[in-house]
Amino acid sequence: GGGFPQETSRHKGARLLGATAHAPGRQRGRRPRVLFFPSRPSCTEALLAEAAGLRTTARPCPCPLPRVDSSLSRLLRHLLSARRSLEICLFAFSSPQLGRAVQLLHRRGVRVRVVTDAQYMGLPGSQIGLLRHAGIQVRHDQEDGYMHHKFAVVDRRMLITGSLNWTTQAIQNNRENVLVVEDAEYVKPFLDEFERIWEEYNPINYRFFSKDDK
Amino acid sequence: GGGFPQETSRHKGARLLGATAHAPGRQRGRRPRVLFFPSRPSCTEALLAEAAGLRTTARPCPCPLPRVDSSLSRLLRHLLSARRSLEICLFAFSSPQLGRAVQLLHRRGVRVRVVTDAQYMGLPGSQIGLLRHAGIQVRHDQEDGYMHHKFAVVDRRMLITGSLNWTTQAIQNNRENVLVVEDAEYVKPFLDEFERIWEEYNPINYRFFSKDDK
Repeated sequence: GGGFPQETSRHKGARLLGATAHAPGRQRGRRPRVLFFPSRPSCTEALLAEAAGLRTTARPCPCPLPRVDSSLSRLLRHLLSARRSLEICLFAFSSPQLGRAVQLLHRRGVRVRVVTDAQYMGLPGSQIGLLRHAGIQVRHDQEDGYMHHKFAVVDRRMLITGSLNWTTQAIQNNRENVLVVEDAEYVKPFLDEFERIWEEYNPINYRFFSKDDK
Repeated sequence: GGGFPQETSRHKGARLLGATAHAPGRQRGRRPRVLFFPSRPSCTEALLAEAAGLRTTARPCPCPLPRVDSSLSRLLRHLLSARRSLEICLFAFSSPQLGRAVQLLHRRGVRVRVVTDAQYMGLPGSQIGLLRHAGIQVRHDQEDGYMHHKFAVVDRRMLITGSLNWTTQAIQNNRENVLVVEDAEYVKPFLDEFERIWEEYNPINYRFFSKDDK
Protein backbone atom coordinates (compact mmCIF):
# COMPACT_ATOMS: atom_id res chain seq x y z
CA GLY A 1 0.00 0.00 0.00
CA GLY A 2 1.13 3.52 0.59
CA GLY A 3 1.13 6.62 -1.51
CA PHE A 4 -0.46 9.87 -0.54
CA PRO A 5 -4.00 9.99 -1.86
CA GLN A 6 -4.46 13.74 -1.69
CA GLU A 7 -1.71 14.16 -4.24
CA THR A 8 -3.53 12.35 -7.02
CA SER A 9 -4.97 13.69 -10.20
CA ARG A 10 -8.07 15.27 -8.77
CA HIS A 11 -5.92 17.72 -6.84
CA LYS A 12 -3.59 18.55 -9.65
CA GLY A 13 -5.40 21.86 -9.95
CA ALA A 14 -4.34 22.77 -6.43
CA ARG A 15 -0.84 21.44 -6.95
CA LEU A 16 -0.39 23.50 -10.08
CA LEU A 17 -0.78 26.60 -7.93
CA GLY A 18 2.90 25.94 -7.50
CA ALA A 19 3.87 29.47 -6.58
CA THR A 20 1.63 29.39 -3.54
CA ALA A 21 2.91 26.07 -2.26
CA HIS A 22 5.90 27.81 -0.72
CA ALA A 23 3.95 30.81 0.53
CA PRO A 24 1.59 29.27 3.09
CA GLY A 25 -1.41 31.39 3.96
CA ARG A 26 -1.28 33.32 0.70
CA GLN A 27 -3.10 30.74 -1.37
CA ARG A 28 -5.87 32.49 -3.26
CA GLY A 29 -7.19 29.54 -5.24
CA ARG A 30 -10.25 27.53 -4.27
CA ARG A 31 -9.28 25.23 -1.44
CA PRO A 32 -10.28 21.60 -1.83
CA ARG A 33 -13.41 20.81 0.16
CA VAL A 34 -12.35 17.25 0.88
CA LEU A 35 -8.99 16.27 2.36
CA PHE A 36 -7.74 12.71 2.31
CA PHE A 37 -5.08 11.17 4.50
CA PRO A 38 -2.40 9.85 5.01
CA SER A 39 -0.97 13.29 4.43
CA ARG A 40 2.14 13.68 2.35
CA PRO A 41 5.00 14.41 4.77
CA SER A 42 5.65 18.15 4.69
CA CYS A 43 7.17 20.85 6.85
CA THR A 44 4.53 23.09 8.43
CA GLU A 45 6.97 25.29 10.37
CA ALA A 46 6.76 28.23 7.96
CA LEU A 47 2.98 28.07 8.00
CA LEU A 48 2.82 28.09 11.81
CA ALA A 49 5.53 30.75 12.16
CA GLU A 50 3.79 33.04 9.71
CA ALA A 51 0.48 32.57 11.55
CA ALA A 52 2.29 33.50 14.78
CA GLY A 53 3.49 36.71 13.15
CA LEU A 54 7.13 35.62 13.00
CA ARG A 55 9.38 36.36 10.04
CA THR A 56 10.01 33.05 8.32
CA THR A 57 12.58 34.15 5.75
CA ALA A 58 15.08 35.03 8.46
CA ARG A 59 15.39 31.52 9.87
CA PRO A 60 14.02 28.85 7.56
CA CYS A 61 13.35 25.50 9.21
CA PRO A 62 16.38 23.21 8.87
CA CYS A 63 14.30 20.00 8.66
CA PRO A 64 14.56 17.90 5.51
CA LEU A 65 10.81 17.71 4.84
CA PRO A 66 9.53 19.42 1.69
CA ARG A 67 7.59 22.66 2.18
CA VAL A 68 4.70 21.67 -0.02
CA ASP A 69 0.95 21.67 0.28
CA SER A 70 -0.40 18.61 2.04
CA SER A 71 -3.65 17.56 3.64
CA LEU A 72 -2.17 18.55 7.01
CA SER A 73 -1.09 21.99 5.81
CA ARG A 74 -4.55 22.55 4.31
CA LEU A 75 -6.24 21.50 7.53
CA LEU A 76 -3.96 23.87 9.47
CA ARG A 77 -4.75 26.73 7.10
CA HIS A 78 -8.49 26.22 7.47
CA LEU A 79 -8.12 26.33 11.27
CA LEU A 80 -5.78 29.32 11.21
CA SER A 81 -8.38 31.30 9.28
CA ALA A 82 -10.34 31.65 12.56
CA ARG A 83 -10.78 35.24 13.70
CA ARG A 84 -13.41 35.07 16.44
CA SER A 85 -14.29 31.55 17.62
CA LEU A 86 -13.24 27.94 17.38
CA GLU A 87 -15.23 25.01 18.75
CA ILE A 88 -13.39 21.68 18.79
CA CYS A 89 -14.95 18.30 19.58
CA LEU A 90 -12.38 15.52 19.34
CA PHE A 91 -12.08 11.96 20.56
CA ALA A 92 -8.26 12.08 20.37
CA PHE A 93 -5.95 15.07 20.06
CA SER A 94 -2.19 14.50 20.11
CA SER A 95 -0.83 16.22 16.98
CA PRO A 96 1.78 18.81 18.07
CA GLN A 97 1.24 20.91 14.94
CA LEU A 98 -2.52 21.11 15.41
CA GLY A 99 -2.01 21.74 19.13
CA ARG A 100 0.30 24.68 18.34
CA ALA A 101 -2.24 26.07 15.87
CA VAL A 102 -4.98 25.98 18.50
CA GLN A 103 -2.76 27.65 21.13
CA LEU A 104 -1.78 30.28 18.60
CA LEU A 105 -5.43 31.10 17.89
CA HIS A 106 -6.10 31.34 21.65
CA ARG A 107 -3.21 33.79 22.05
CA ARG A 108 -4.54 35.78 19.09
CA GLY A 109 -7.81 36.30 21.01
CA VAL A 110 -9.96 33.71 19.29
CA ARG A 111 -12.47 32.18 21.72
CA VAL A 112 -11.43 28.53 21.77
CA ARG A 113 -13.49 25.81 23.43
CA VAL A 114 -12.53 22.14 23.39
CA VAL A 115 -14.59 19.04 24.17
CA THR A 116 -12.86 15.68 24.37
CA ASP A 117 -13.15 12.10 25.55
CA ALA A 118 -12.14 11.35 29.14
CA GLN A 119 -10.58 7.97 28.32
CA TYR A 120 -8.12 9.43 25.83
CA MET A 121 -7.20 12.81 27.24
CA GLY A 122 -4.78 11.56 29.89
CA LEU A 123 -2.76 9.27 27.61
CA PRO A 124 0.88 10.10 26.85
CA GLY A 125 1.16 12.52 23.96
CA SER A 126 -2.27 14.03 24.45
CA GLN A 127 -2.39 17.76 23.73
CA ILE A 128 -5.26 18.32 26.16
CA GLY A 129 -3.08 19.03 29.21
CA LEU A 130 -1.04 21.56 27.23
CA LEU A 131 -4.18 23.32 26.03
CA ARG A 132 -5.52 23.53 29.57
CA HIS A 133 -2.15 24.80 30.79
CA ALA A 134 -2.33 27.53 28.14
CA GLY A 135 -5.64 28.68 29.58
CA ILE A 136 -7.93 27.14 26.97
CA GLN A 137 -11.30 25.91 28.18
CA VAL A 138 -11.61 22.13 27.91
CA ARG A 139 -14.51 19.93 28.96
CA HIS A 140 -14.71 16.15 28.81
CA ASP A 141 -17.37 13.50 28.97
CA GLN A 142 -18.39 11.53 32.03
CA GLU A 143 -20.14 8.76 30.16
CA ASP A 144 -19.70 5.08 29.41
CA GLY A 145 -19.78 5.59 25.65
CA TYR A 146 -17.08 7.39 23.71
CA MET A 147 -17.21 11.05 22.79
CA HIS A 148 -16.24 9.94 19.29
CA HIS A 149 -16.85 13.13 17.28
CA LYS A 150 -13.99 14.61 15.27
CA PHE A 151 -15.11 18.07 14.26
CA ALA A 152 -14.31 21.75 14.56
CA VAL A 153 -16.30 24.87 13.74
CA VAL A 154 -14.43 28.01 12.67
CA ASP A 155 -16.09 31.41 13.26
CA ARG A 156 -19.51 29.71 13.38
CA ARG A 157 -19.38 29.42 9.58
CA MET A 158 -16.99 26.61 8.61
CA LEU A 159 -17.45 23.00 9.67
CA ILE A 160 -14.41 20.71 9.56
CA THR A 161 -15.42 17.10 10.16
CA GLY A 162 -14.60 13.53 9.17
CA SER A 163 -12.97 10.33 10.32
CA LEU A 164 -9.67 11.95 11.35
CA ASN A 165 -8.61 12.16 14.95
CA TRP A 166 -6.00 14.85 15.37
CA THR A 167 -3.13 12.45 15.98
CA THR A 168 0.17 12.07 14.18
CA GLN A 169 -0.55 8.35 13.74
CA ALA A 170 -3.77 9.09 11.87
CA ILE A 171 -2.35 11.99 9.86
CA GLN A 172 0.71 10.07 8.69
CA ASN A 173 -0.47 6.46 8.46
CA ASN A 174 -4.22 6.07 8.22
CA ARG A 175 -6.73 6.27 5.40
CA GLU A 176 -8.85 9.18 6.62
CA ASN A 177 -11.13 11.90 5.32
CA VAL A 178 -11.99 15.45 6.35
CA LEU A 179 -14.78 17.51 4.85
CA VAL A 180 -14.84 21.30 4.92
CA VAL A 181 -18.39 22.60 4.71
CA GLU A 182 -19.71 26.15 4.91
CA ASP A 183 -23.38 25.40 4.23
CA ALA A 184 -25.42 26.49 7.28
CA GLU A 185 -27.63 23.43 6.86
CA TYR A 186 -24.65 21.40 8.08
CA VAL A 187 -22.83 23.93 10.26
CA LYS A 188 -25.82 24.79 12.46
CA PRO A 189 -26.62 21.24 13.67
CA PHE A 190 -22.96 20.75 14.62
CA LEU A 191 -22.90 24.06 16.51
CA ASP A 192 -26.08 23.00 18.31
CA GLU A 193 -24.51 19.61 19.10
CA PHE A 194 -21.42 21.35 20.43
CA GLU A 195 -23.45 23.65 22.72
CA ARG A 196 -25.52 20.71 23.96
CA ILE A 197 -22.39 18.71 24.79
CA TRP A 198 -20.65 21.76 26.26
CA GLU A 199 -23.51 22.27 28.71
CA GLU A 200 -23.87 18.59 29.50
CA TYR A 201 -20.14 18.28 30.27
CA ASN A 202 -20.20 21.35 32.50
CA PRO A 203 -18.27 20.31 35.63
CA ILE A 204 -21.16 21.44 37.84
CA ASN A 205 -23.03 18.47 36.37
CA TYR A 206 -20.41 15.93 37.42
CA ARG A 207 -21.61 13.38 39.88
CA PHE A 208 -19.30 12.28 42.65
CA PHE A 209 -20.45 9.20 44.44
CA SER A 210 -20.03 8.73 48.16
CA LYS A 211 -20.52 5.62 50.29
CA ASP A 212 -24.09 6.70 50.90
CA ASP A 213 -24.91 6.28 47.22
CA LYS A 214 -26.00 2.90 46.02
CA GLY B 1 -24.89 12.11 30.71
CA GLY B 2 -27.17 10.34 28.33
CA GLY B 3 -30.21 11.36 26.40
CA PHE B 4 -30.59 10.89 22.71
CA PRO B 5 -29.40 13.99 20.93
CA GLN B 6 -31.19 13.41 17.64
CA GLU B 7 -34.50 13.71 19.46
CA THR B 8 -33.95 17.29 20.51
CA SER B 9 -35.73 20.38 19.36
CA ARG B 10 -34.05 20.72 16.00
CA HIS B 11 -35.64 17.46 14.91
CA LYS B 12 -39.09 18.20 16.23
CA GLY B 13 -40.16 18.86 12.68
CA ALA B 14 -39.30 15.32 11.72
CA ARG B 15 -40.89 13.93 14.87
CA LEU B 16 -44.10 15.80 14.25
CA LEU B 17 -44.51 13.80 11.05
CA GLY B 18 -46.08 11.42 13.54
CA ALA B 19 -48.18 9.52 11.04
CA THR B 20 -45.09 8.49 9.10
CA ALA B 21 -43.14 7.37 12.15
CA HIS B 22 -44.97 4.04 12.11
CA ALA B 23 -44.89 3.65 8.34
CA PRO B 24 -41.16 3.31 7.64
CA GLY B 25 -40.14 3.95 4.08
CA ARG B 26 -43.17 6.13 3.39
CA GLN B 27 -41.77 9.29 4.90
CA ARG B 28 -42.27 12.09 2.41
CA GLY B 29 -40.81 14.93 4.45
CA ARG B 30 -37.31 16.32 4.02
CA ARG B 31 -34.88 13.95 5.69
CA PRO B 32 -32.41 15.53 8.09
CA ARG B 33 -28.98 15.93 6.51
CA VAL B 34 -27.12 15.38 9.76
CA LEU B 35 -27.70 12.45 12.08
CA PHE B 36 -26.38 12.41 15.63
CA PHE B 37 -25.81 9.41 17.83
CA PRO B 38 -26.34 7.69 20.27
CA SER B 39 -29.49 6.68 18.49
CA ARG B 40 -32.72 6.45 20.43
CA PRO B 41 -33.46 2.74 20.91
CA SER B 42 -36.06 1.75 18.34
CA CYS B 43 -37.30 -1.36 16.56
CA THR B 44 -36.17 -1.48 12.94
CA GLU B 45 -37.76 -4.85 12.11
CA ALA B 46 -40.72 -3.37 10.23
CA LEU B 47 -38.39 -1.16 8.20
CA LEU B 48 -36.15 -4.09 7.22
CA ALA B 49 -39.08 -6.44 6.57
CA GLU B 50 -40.78 -3.92 4.32
CA ALA B 51 -37.52 -3.36 2.42
CA ALA B 52 -37.31 -7.14 1.97
CA GLY B 53 -40.79 -7.14 0.47
CA LEU B 54 -42.40 -8.93 3.41
CA ARG B 55 -45.81 -8.02 4.76
CA THR B 56 -45.23 -6.38 8.12
CA THR B 57 -48.83 -6.10 9.28
CA ALA B 58 -49.26 -9.86 9.38
CA ARG B 59 -46.60 -10.50 12.03
CA PRO B 60 -45.56 -7.36 13.88
CA CYS B 61 -42.29 -7.65 15.79
CA PRO B 62 -42.95 -8.71 19.40
CA CYS B 63 -40.00 -6.75 20.81
CA PRO B 64 -40.70 -4.02 23.36
CA LEU B 65 -38.75 -1.28 21.55
CA PRO B 66 -40.78 1.64 20.20
CA ARG B 67 -41.23 1.77 16.43
CA VAL B 68 -40.20 5.38 16.08
CA ASP B 69 -37.84 7.32 13.88
CA SER B 70 -34.26 7.28 15.16
CA SER B 71 -30.84 8.08 13.78
CA LEU B 72 -30.39 4.36 13.07
CA SER B 73 -33.70 4.06 11.22
CA ARG B 74 -32.85 7.15 9.18
CA LEU B 75 -29.42 5.77 8.31
CA LEU B 76 -31.05 2.48 7.28
CA ARG B 77 -33.58 4.29 5.11
CA HIS B 78 -30.87 6.26 3.30
CA LEU B 79 -29.01 3.00 2.56
CA LEU B 80 -32.14 1.14 1.52
CA SER B 81 -32.85 3.82 -1.07
CA ALA B 82 -30.06 2.28 -3.21
CA ARG B 83 -31.23 0.96 -6.55
CA ARG B 84 -28.04 0.34 -8.53
CA SER B 85 -24.81 0.57 -6.50
CA LEU B 86 -23.48 0.82 -2.98
CA GLU B 87 -19.84 1.43 -2.09
CA ILE B 88 -18.96 0.96 1.57
CA CYS B 89 -15.65 1.85 3.19
CA LEU B 90 -15.68 1.06 6.90
CA PHE B 91 -13.11 0.59 9.60
CA ALA B 92 -15.51 -1.50 11.71
CA PHE B 93 -18.80 -3.14 10.72
CA SER B 94 -20.64 -5.24 13.29
CA SER B 95 -24.20 -3.87 13.40
CA PRO B 96 -26.62 -6.75 12.58
CA GLN B 97 -29.29 -4.34 11.32
CA LEU B 98 -26.93 -2.57 8.93
CA GLY B 99 -25.51 -5.93 7.86
CA ARG B 100 -29.00 -7.18 7.02
CA ALA B 101 -29.71 -4.02 5.06
CA VAL B 102 -26.56 -4.49 2.98
CA GLN B 103 -27.34 -8.17 2.32
CA LEU B 104 -30.88 -7.23 1.35
CA LEU B 105 -29.61 -4.72 -1.20
CA HIS B 106 -27.24 -7.34 -2.61
CA ARG B 107 -30.14 -9.80 -3.04
CA ARG B 108 -32.18 -7.03 -4.67
CA GLY B 109 -29.48 -6.76 -7.38
CA VAL B 110 -27.67 -3.66 -6.14
CA ARG B 111 -23.94 -3.86 -6.92
CA VAL B 112 -22.41 -3.82 -3.43
CA ARG B 113 -18.68 -3.43 -2.81
CA VAL B 114 -17.13 -3.28 0.66
CA VAL B 115 -13.68 -2.12 1.76
CA THR B 116 -12.64 -2.68 5.35
CA ASP B 117 -9.73 -2.79 7.76
CA ALA B 118 -7.86 -6.08 8.11
CA GLN B 119 -7.26 -5.69 11.85
CA TYR B 120 -10.96 -5.42 12.65
CA MET B 121 -12.70 -7.70 10.17
CA GLY B 122 -11.88 -10.96 11.94
CA LEU B 123 -13.02 -9.91 15.41
CA PRO B 124 -16.07 -11.57 16.98
CA GLY B 125 -19.28 -9.89 15.88
CA SER B 126 -17.86 -8.55 12.63
CA GLN B 127 -20.36 -8.61 9.77
CA ILE B 128 -17.64 -8.98 7.15
CA GLY B 129 -17.61 -12.80 7.12
CA LEU B 130 -21.39 -12.88 6.73
CA LEU B 131 -21.24 -10.44 3.83
CA ARG B 132 -18.58 -12.51 2.09
CA HIS B 133 -20.61 -15.67 2.72
CA ALA B 134 -23.59 -13.98 1.06
CA GLY B 135 -21.48 -13.41 -2.05
CA ILE B 136 -20.72 -9.74 -1.55
CA GLN B 137 -17.34 -8.49 -2.76
CA VAL B 138 -15.12 -7.42 0.14
CA ARG B 139 -11.56 -6.15 0.02
CA HIS B 140 -9.33 -5.22 2.93
CA ASP B 141 -6.13 -3.31 3.50
CA GLN B 142 -2.67 -4.78 3.80
CA GLU B 143 -1.10 -1.75 5.44
CA ASP B 144 0.36 -0.74 8.76
CA GLY B 145 -2.01 2.19 9.18
CA TYR B 146 -5.72 1.83 9.71
CA MET B 147 -8.29 1.96 6.93
CA HIS B 148 -10.19 4.39 9.14
CA HIS B 149 -12.82 5.75 6.72
CA LYS B 150 -16.48 5.40 7.65
CA PHE B 151 -18.41 6.21 4.49
CA ALA B 152 -20.85 4.82 1.96
CA VAL B 153 -21.97 6.07 -1.44
CA VAL B 154 -25.48 5.24 -2.65
CA ASP B 155 -26.15 5.12 -6.42
CA ARG B 156 -23.09 7.31 -7.02
CA ARG B 157 -25.15 10.30 -5.85
CA MET B 158 -25.48 10.21 -2.05
CA LEU B 159 -22.50 10.31 0.31
CA ILE B 160 -23.02 9.05 3.87
CA THR B 161 -19.99 9.83 6.02
CA GLY B 162 -18.96 10.78 9.52
CA SER B 163 -17.42 9.52 12.74
CA LEU B 164 -19.71 6.50 13.08
CA ASN B 165 -18.41 2.99 12.69
CA TRP B 166 -21.29 0.66 11.93
CA THR B 167 -21.23 -1.05 15.31
CA THR B 168 -23.96 -1.48 17.89
CA GLN B 169 -21.63 -0.03 20.53
CA ALA B 170 -21.22 3.19 18.54
CA ILE B 171 -24.88 3.43 17.51
CA GLN B 172 -26.23 2.94 21.03
CA ASN B 173 -23.56 4.45 23.28
CA ASN B 174 -21.26 6.91 21.53
CA ARG B 175 -21.48 10.55 20.59
CA GLU B 176 -21.24 10.29 16.80
CA ASN B 177 -22.23 12.15 13.66
CA VAL B 178 -23.20 11.17 10.13
CA LEU B 179 -23.61 13.60 7.26
CA VAL B 180 -25.74 12.87 4.22
CA VAL B 181 -24.53 14.86 1.23
CA GLU B 182 -25.70 14.80 -2.38
CA ASP B 183 -23.49 17.60 -3.69
CA ALA B 184 -21.20 16.18 -6.41
CA GLU B 185 -18.35 18.36 -5.13
CA TYR B 186 -18.25 16.04 -2.11
CA VAL B 187 -19.56 12.78 -3.58
CA LYS B 188 -17.06 12.62 -6.47
CA PRO B 189 -13.84 12.77 -4.39
CA PHE B 190 -15.16 9.99 -2.14
CA LEU B 191 -16.05 7.84 -5.16
CA ASP B 192 -12.56 8.45 -6.52
CA GLU B 193 -11.06 7.54 -3.15
CA PHE B 194 -13.13 4.35 -3.09
CA GLU B 195 -12.00 3.28 -6.57
CA ARG B 196 -8.38 4.06 -5.70
CA ILE B 197 -8.58 1.95 -2.52
CA TRP B 198 -10.54 -0.79 -4.29
CA GLU B 199 -7.78 -1.18 -6.86
CA GLU B 200 -4.98 -0.92 -4.34
CA TYR B 201 -6.56 -3.62 -2.16
CA ASN B 202 -7.04 -5.94 -5.14
CA PRO B 203 -5.80 -9.33 -3.92
CA ILE B 204 -3.51 -9.60 -6.94
CA ASN B 205 -1.50 -6.80 -5.32
CA TYR B 206 -0.98 -8.67 -2.06
CA ARG B 207 2.59 -9.45 -1.26
CA PHE B 208 3.43 -12.77 0.33
CA PHE B 209 6.90 -12.92 1.75
CA SER B 210 9.03 -16.04 1.59
CA LYS B 211 12.29 -16.85 3.34
CA ASP B 212 14.14 -15.51 0.32
CA ASP B 213 12.80 -12.03 0.97
CA LYS B 214 14.66 -9.81 3.35
